[in-house]
Amino acid sequence: MASQFKVTPWEVSGTVDYGKLIKQFGTEPITEQLLNRIKKRTKEIHFMLRRKIFFSHRDFNWLLDEYEKGNKFFLYTGRAPSGPIHIGHLVPWVFTKWLQDKFGVELLFQIPDEEKFFFKDNLTLEETEKWAHENILDIIALGFDPKKTKFLIDTKDASQMYKTACQIAKKITFSTVKAAFGFSDSNNLGEIWYTTMQATPAVLPSVQKGKNIPCLIPLGVDQDPHFRVARDVYTKLGFYKPAIIHAKFMSGLLADGKMSASIPNSTIYTTDTPKEVEEKIKKHAFSGGRSSLAEHRKYGGNPDIDVCYQWLHAFFEPDDKKLAKIYNNYKSGKLLTSELKDYTIEKINKFLKEHQKAREKARKQIGKFLFKA
Amino acid sequence: MASQFKVTPWEVSGTVDYGKLIKQFGTEPITEQLLNRIKKRTKEIHFMLRRKIFFSHRDFNWLLDEYEKGNKFFLYTGRAPSGPIHIGHLVPWVFTKWLQDKFGVELLFQIPDEEKFFFKDNLTLEETEKWAHENILDIIALGFDPKKTKFLIDTKDASQMYKTACQIAKKITFSTVKAAFGFSDSNNLGEIWYTTMQATPAVLPSVQKGKNIPCLIPLGVDQDPHFRVARDVYTKLGFYKPAIIHAKFMSGLLADGKMSASIPNSTIYTTDTPKEVEEKIKKHAFSGGRSSLAEHRKYGGNPDIDVCYQWLHAFFEPDDKKLAKIYNNYKSGKLLTSELKDYTIEKINKFLKEHQKAREKARKQIGKFLFKA
Repeated sequence: MASQFKVTPWEVSGTVDYGKLIKQFGTEPITEQLLNRIKKRTKEIHFMLRRKIFFSHRDFNWLLDEYEKGNKFFLYTGRAPSGPIHIGHLVPWVFTKWLQDKFGVELLFQIPDEEKFFFKDNLTLEETEKWAHENILDIIALGFDPKKTKFLIDTKDASQMYKTACQIAKKITFSTVKAAFGFSDSNNLGEIWYTTMQATPAVLPSVQKGKNIPCLIPLGVDQDPHFRVARDVYTKLGFYKPAIIHAKFMSGLLADGKMSASIPNSTIYTTDTPKEVEEKIKKHAFSGGRSSLAEHRKYGGNPDIDVCYQWLHAFFEPDDKKLAKIYNNYKSGKLLTSELKDYTIEKINKFLKEHQKAREKARKQIGKFLFKA
Repeated sequence: MASQFKVTPWEVSGTVDYGKLIKQFGTEPITEQLLNRIKKRTKEIHFMLRRKIFFSHRDFNWLLDEYEKGNKFFLYTGRAPSGPIHIGHLVPWVFTKWLQDKFGVELLFQIPDEEKFFFKDNLTLEETEKWAHENILDIIALGFDPKKTKFLIDTKDASQMYKTACQIAKKITFSTVKAAFGFSDSNNLGEIWYTTMQATPAVLPSVQKGKNIPCLIPLGVDQDPHFRVARDVYTKLGFYKPAIIHAKFMSGLLADGKMSASIPNSTIYTTDTPKEVEEKIKKHAFSGGRSSLAEHRKYGGNPDIDVCYQWLHAFFEPDDKKLAKIYNNYKSGKLLTSELKDYTIEKINKFLKEHQKAREKARKQIGKFLFKA
């Protein structure tokens, strides 16, 4: 039996086979050749690239061609607010910040505060508005350049977006979104419309400046279908297709698939206290260790299924040498599960301490990141 | 064989049976009792009401109940720009202006400059923008109170509207618009979404002022389906359902159904010269006269099918006595078709002379009628 998995913007289930997903979605794997090409421009390679946390792309080579011709791109990513931010959310954003720093480019950060409202029965726009504010604090806390970063909040900045969204909407039929997203006649008009709003920021600077500007979208791979739908539309409207770079999902503590803000025991929120982090990891982090200390020492653990190791790999241990040592020591049984957990707890809490400080400071910085009303 | 007709926001065909339409749409006929009730407030009755050019309504009695309790309503109507204004377009607006004057109320005038763009393959947003400007001149020329009238231009004022449109969109499924508008899977996302934008202004002042404000929508009856779809949604969202008053269509010169801006020979545009008006009426106005002068004198003409008479009835001869005289004299054969045409030409040209003067003045007044960007 083939393992089944499903990846859509609104549902990720099963064990995702990223190799298969590349074929399914028709994207390109990130090759060593591409990494070398990037490195020429950035001098170093972010560990998320090196470790294939960003594993796939569309048109990244074209983007670099343009860049090398002096045709600078801008970055576009987003966050649909409906709850608190967890560390899994941060993966594409930390990388986006790195891209901004290395290439010195502008970033358009969409906050589609209507999306989850359309898709969740009981969610109100008052709640998404509240979460938009909270989530923006987390994003600012990552250190984006306020001179080069703007939040595009759909319900507030609709006047900037609506005309372009209309252009896109005219070129997409219900048949197309039915096929791409599995919609039926019982979907609401907001759900059906929404993809146009997500497609819009990729060409908004081109519209506003009256010339084509290349766009790079770092995103979780579940968001790719929106841009697959819009891809041909961009061309028909005379715009460049955006380049895209796709991130894998960060696993939940319970190793229950993509980390979800709605499963607290499986999730580390950015506002968790050191105590909460410690308790969650100790209690819930799915371990690759053996059932007894003696067995662990004798046969070793399995880092490949251990959530703490996965998190160090994806986010909290950028140092390849240290990571390799942890891998080998855990595999050999030298490093115990409790020690691996302690190390991870320390790493997470160190990160969160800084993050939470920056998050508080962000309250006073928001204005700089918003479009004037 | 029953005569077939079709009335949707995007197609009016066949000979419309307005009595049947009232049953089909589930609206109420305008009764003498209702006219008397209106007259109590307005002192006089507009001839378009008296003559049942406005023939049908929804919840007008409720609106007057509220008004009499001191709960003032606002007016909402609109114009989807895609071409020049003809005299048929003016019918609901002239009446809306009368309502504004008599009740001293605010008017929200929507310019959904994306609607026709969604529905017409070759129409661009640049063209609808141009027509929006031209059409607004015609509307201002009718004399609306600049202190009490605002244009809501969808692509410019989307930030005001989008959040409320989202609230409405969540409550309408594709099934519903399929049934109401005859949509299929091949409709584009803009067409499917659009009804939410037309539904929005009816509750926008309520949203913005944080309390329920009654709304009265004077419109051509072909626009009713949008509000039929939205009716239950308003209630679900805690708003009043708007009251609606429905106008009949003004016939084209060729008596070929609803006047259409795309059939020049059948249409008098507001920018036509006296000469053009004269030529069109003389050449094309469908006549109820006999085939020879002798026969006309002997048997009389038929004012009920004569376009000139219909236009005097619907728009250009507010004086009931004069109109009755014309009716009787034409019917008896005393009034010839050429005389009826001359009279109508004179009436139209007198109206257009004033209108065109006001239309030029309007160029300098536009700013007063727009929301600040």
